[in-house]
Amino acid sequence: MRTGIATVCLSGTLKEKMRACATAGFDGIEIFEQDLVTSALAPEEIRTIAGDLGLTLDLYQPFRDFDSVPENLLAANLRRAAAKFRLMSRLGMDTILACTNVGTASIDSDDLRMEQLGRLAELAGDHGVKVAYEALAWGKYVNDYEHAHRLVEAVNHPNLGTCLDSFHILSRNWDTAPIAAMTPEKIFFVQVADAPKLAMDVLSWSRHYRVFPGEGQFDLATFMGHVVRAGYSGPVSLEIFNDVFRQADVGRTAMDGMRSLIWLEEQTAKQLQDADTPADGGTGAGRRRYPMELATLPQVAQPAGYNFAEVRAADTAGLEKVLDQLGFEFNGRHRTKNVQLWTMGHARVIISQAVPGPAAAPAAGSGPAIAALGFDVDSPAIAAARAQQLKAPAVPRKSQANEEVFQGFAAPDSTEIFLCQGNPDGTAAWTHEFGEGLELTATAGSAVIDHVNLAQPWQHFDEAVLFYTSALALQPQPFAEVPSPTGLVRSQVMLTADRSVRLVLNLAPLAQQDGDGSRKTYQEHIAFAVQDLVATARAARDRGLEFLQIPANYYEDLDARFGLDPTFLATLQDLNLLYDRDADGEFLHFYTATVGNVFFEMVERRGSYDGYGAPNAPVRHAVQYSHRQSDPRA
Amino acid sequence: MRTGIATVCLSGTLKEKMRACATAGFDGIEIFEQDLVTSALAPEEIRTIAGDLGLTLDLYQPFRDFDSVPENLLAANLRRAAAKFRLMSRLGMDTILACTNVGTASIDSDDLRMEQLGRLAELAGDHGVKVAYEALAWGKYVNDYEHAHRLVEAVNHPNLGTCLDSFHILSRNWDTAPIAAMTPEKIFFVQVADAPKLAMDVLSWSRHYRVFPGEGQFDLATFMGHVVRAGYSGPVSLEIFNDVFRQADVGRTAMDGMRSLIWLEEQTAKQLQDADTPADGGTGAGRRRYPMELATLPQVAQPAGYNFAEVRAADTAGLEKVLDQLGFEFNGRHRTKNVQLWTMGHARVIISQAVPGPAAAPAAGSGPAIAALGFDVDSPAIAAARAQQLKAPAVPRKSQANEEVFQGFAAPDSTEIFLCQGNPDGTAAWTHEFGEGLELTATAGSAVIDHVNLAQPWQHFDEAVLFYTSALALQPQPFAEVPSPTGLVRSQVMLTADRSVRLVLNLAPLAQQDGDGSRKTYQEHIAFAVQDLVATARAARDRGLEFLQIPANYYEDLDARFGLDPTFLATLQDLNLLYDRDADGEFLHFYTATVGNVFFEMVERRGSYDGYGAPNAPVRHAVQYSHRQSDPRA
Repeated sequence: MRTGIATVCLSGTLKEKMRACATAGFDGIEIFEQDLVTSALAPEEIRTIAGDLGLTLDLYQPFRDFDSVPENLLAANLRRAAAKFRLMSRLGMDTILACTNVGTASIDSDDLRMEQLGRLAELAGDHGVKVAYEALAWGKYVNDYEHAHRLVEAVNHPNLGTCLDSFHILSRNWDTAPIAAMTPEKIFFVQVADAPKLAMDVLSWSRHYRVFPGEGQFDLATFMGHVVRAGYSGPVSLEIFNDVFRQADVGRTAMDGMRSLIWLEEQTAKQLQDADTPADGGTGAGRRRYPMELATLPQVAQPAGYNFAEVRAADTAGLEKVLDQLGFEFNGRHRTKNVQLWTMGHARVIISQAVPGPAAAPAAGSGPAIAALGFDVDSPAIAAARAQQLKAPAVPRKSQANEEVFQGFAAPDSTEIFLCQGNPDGTAAWTHEFGEGLELTATAGSAVIDHVNLAQPWQHFDEAVLFYTSALALQPQPFAEVPSPTGLVRSQVMLTADRSVRLVLNLAPLAQQDGDGSRKTYQEHIAFAVQDLVATARAARDRGLEFLQIPANYYEDLDARFGLDPTFLATLQDLNLLYDRDADGEFLHFYTATVGNVFFEMVERRGSYDGYGAPNAPVRHAVQYSHRQSDPRA
Repeated sequence: MRTGIATVCLSGTLKEKMRACATAGFDGIEIFEQDLVTSALAPEEIRTIAGDLGLTLDLYQPFRDFDSVPENLLAANLRRAAAKFRLMSRLGMDTILACTNVGTASIDSDDLRMEQLGRLAELAGDHGVKVAYEALAWGKYVNDYEHAHRLVEAVNHPNLGTCLDSFHILSRNWDTAPIAAMTPEKIFFVQVADAPKLAMDVLSWSRHYRVFPGEGQFDLATFMGHVVRAGYSGPVSLEIFNDVFRQADVGRTAMDGMRSLIWLEEQTAKQLQDADTPADGGTGAGRRRYPMELATLPQVAQPAGYNFAEVRAADTAGLEKVLDQLGFEFNGRHRTKNVQLWTMGHARVIISQAVPGPAAAPAAGSGPAIAALGFDVDSPAIAAARAQQLKAPAVPRKSQANEEVFQGFAAPDSTEIFLCQGNPDGTAAWTHEFGEGLELTATAGSAVIDHVNLAQPWQHFDEAVLFYTSALALQPQPFAEVPSPTGLVRSQVMLTADRSVRLVLNLAPLAQQDGDGSRKTYQEHIAFAVQDLVATARAARDRGLEFLQIPANYYEDLDARFGLDPTFLATLQDLNLLYDRDADGEFLHFYTATVGNVFFEMVERRGSYDGYGAPNAPVRHAVQYSHRQSDPRA
């Protein structure tokens, strides 16, 4: 699949954008007119730079408001087109996007449009230019891709074709199946964009909320499947108008976009394979072949669970104390590294010593933070190869002979993600590298890591969703918004189908982040599931644990909502436990005080409860906020 | 008018919110349930704190999902209500908001609702509580305030009344006139919220985008006029769900809210006066009187123009050089202060020396910035009294005997706003305080300050719109969004009707702001209008002015769009002039290079052109960005 991206997706100057696109590995780019008009580079220089970078210049765009106009305006539009065609010649470009008229259309006649598009195609032909006609979702008279394509077919000129843009098609819920029947020679260009499903006017939705494929809710694999079936084999190019991407680091955004196309290519291949496999379940010998070649990635199953979580701190004493009070067992130090292992059942927490200095771990200077997560996967080598092909940046982890080598890479928020070989019984082989000579009592119970909650910088939230979707095969759930005393916290759950991995991405209020979002400034946490939360809490209290103190008002409200048994309610209040109930089951949980940027949660799931106690989250935020104000009663 | 505000409008803990509300001058507050549930304060303590602060506790809210349910759910809902009624007794509160059912309603029967609301009213009566029933705009069966009120009237119980919320009514475009005919005893509460007109689902619109009155586009004066006509005299209370307000400083937001109610009170009084004045133009002797007393503010006309603009810098040399090159005349130093006056026609620029130190002027440490604006008003004393009543913070300006004393106050972005007595001929009396003994040539020409463009911190943008609307009687125009290499810039024009004052509020991309938005980090500018821009530019070039360099590509595009006369186009390009044209006229302008955070623009308006060259703004942003990158061709 030939990959492309429109320069409007990215921040910076045209040259900065082109360099970032080349570095990210795109085959070509679309030149967004404003990026050229505002550039100090002459068209010939742009052409040379693209050549030097190995980028093709695939599409000049947009040419607006051409058709459905009176003759005097058409003459001006043709003159404007001729100027752009001459410019394209200097750029060495041959395809221009003409979108359906929004602003100046005044005559609703397909016959007139055919005539006018014919004249445009004729003029384009004189300049060796191809015009790709695109139906904008909010075009005044033409807003349906099939309508636009009918006009293209009726004009029947070699220099006029269709441009398909997934946003304009899927935002209007147009059926995509007819794409498969299009003549491939008449599809001049394909643009892809994803978006969250929002109930708002389609123009605002398009201009501000588009995201890269895999970051929204559109069914792009099906769309692309039809494009491939039609026989199209040209560029598949990203055109994403997104308020955040416009502000974010150009290199990061370009890489994010490239990852989205690699993932989409795989999803499209899968979609075709699934849909085109004969009903008799044949091995695919009879599967159709298409002009577009689709690469696939090493296939991985969803992770089977968390292998470990690692918390890093310059001073680890506070962490050690809390884990001990929670009932974790100290499993000793690593034989060669300055890290400790703490376990409770199959929940493993590594505490590592942050190395001060400019190249220190994230937030090393500001107290403990979650530094790494290990996931159990079928084959760490295959999973790592997949992540690498998805351009996940590898992180080195030093190891010595006879030690397990973890394959690792950096998530968008800089958390290190390691791929581990888990044992079916929930144990991990590498633990023998810890606590040599230490006499360990058997760690009782079946505690596991229930979920991990990571704070995301505002510029990289969408990128993180795609990262975990594509590299770890987690599935994003509908997001929630939780009120806190410093603003709404956007909370995005990522899951495996069997719930063995639950990862929550939290977008902290902007006022809690620094302007460029580069530092972890917001608390994160690790939650452990146990069988008997009340017993766990009692034991922790006996060991002196500092619980997050839940207000009495909360328990009164709980009683008003649920009408709980008075003894049970008293137990909850006595132990600072929070409670939730829904049709699936019940949820009990408590929080520790915060150490640096980290706190811990202990949970008990009863029945098939599948949530996270969302109604209680505002209580947690409010109490933590009060503690940060250093006067809990302020 | 009794003023109130719901705690959900504000950031922080319940106690922080209450203190801020008292400081801002509210009479009472609504307790948003979540603020109580998450608070460590006992209900009795909250009651005491409110009493100490002089705040009445006007409304407990919300009580959700009560009506239209089967009997078993109703029993649980009544039990839940009883618990809340007991809680209210401890708080010393007597009114609760019950909103129409969204989540659990399953039976659409007004008869059933009447019966159920009657039982709720009966139970409320037992506890001495009044229930204010509100139609949510997205209520499942009841979403129209008239429908809700018909139910209230039909139940006809002294403990059941209506709550009117302007958002739920105006977002659905319900007619507000029927409010005037309501029985005042049946209106238990009135909530006001403004909002920008957005085409999106009403729930998201309500939860994220409400703003204080005067910051949106709802006709709240007409709504309030009907409320007053009905005979209601209870609290008028703000209920604003806004993503930014939730994050902003609690004291600032509370003050902003208070200002909005003071302004709304005046607008309501005006609306009533206009609407109720007899057609014979009588003096109002026969004007109706209503139970709600409405205070008014000192009346001011819109300002007649800019009196001056002040730029402050630690090192003023760069500013002096640019103004000199632009053709400004140095009018000498002030007789007692360390400031200089530069003029061109009636455009006056003061350059002042920033005093270093902790209490320094904004951005004193980061180069020149716009520090103050002077506006010509009819009566500075009356205008200052008005601003003071609108809680604008006064700024002191030292002056000595025989010097003009400016009345000044601080705008939300910390720019100092001064109210000046202008002369009808465009001169200003205070200029004689400058340049004693200096021989001045007569300043030729009719140059004026055309517009000023101020960068706004993201937390205070809406506040700024209300500030200039209420204190200076400027009118907000529909906002625009301008692409820049670092993100979209939101641009909000504020105008006088005669265009003698044009103020542009720019919201810079978040990545360009610090997290708490406290510093001016984005460039701002002052634009001067001249009669002959080409001559002005030539003269400036001769004096060595560094123009903002406009790319050649821009002029090619300009020609493609407008088909300009080649000689004229060559002149534009030769002088780095930008050009725009619309049905009203033409616009020529150029920019200087940036000095610190400030640059200057020279403009010429031809015909009735009323814009700001918006199509050219992306060019300006891109070139300025390139210069900040210190390689214009990067």
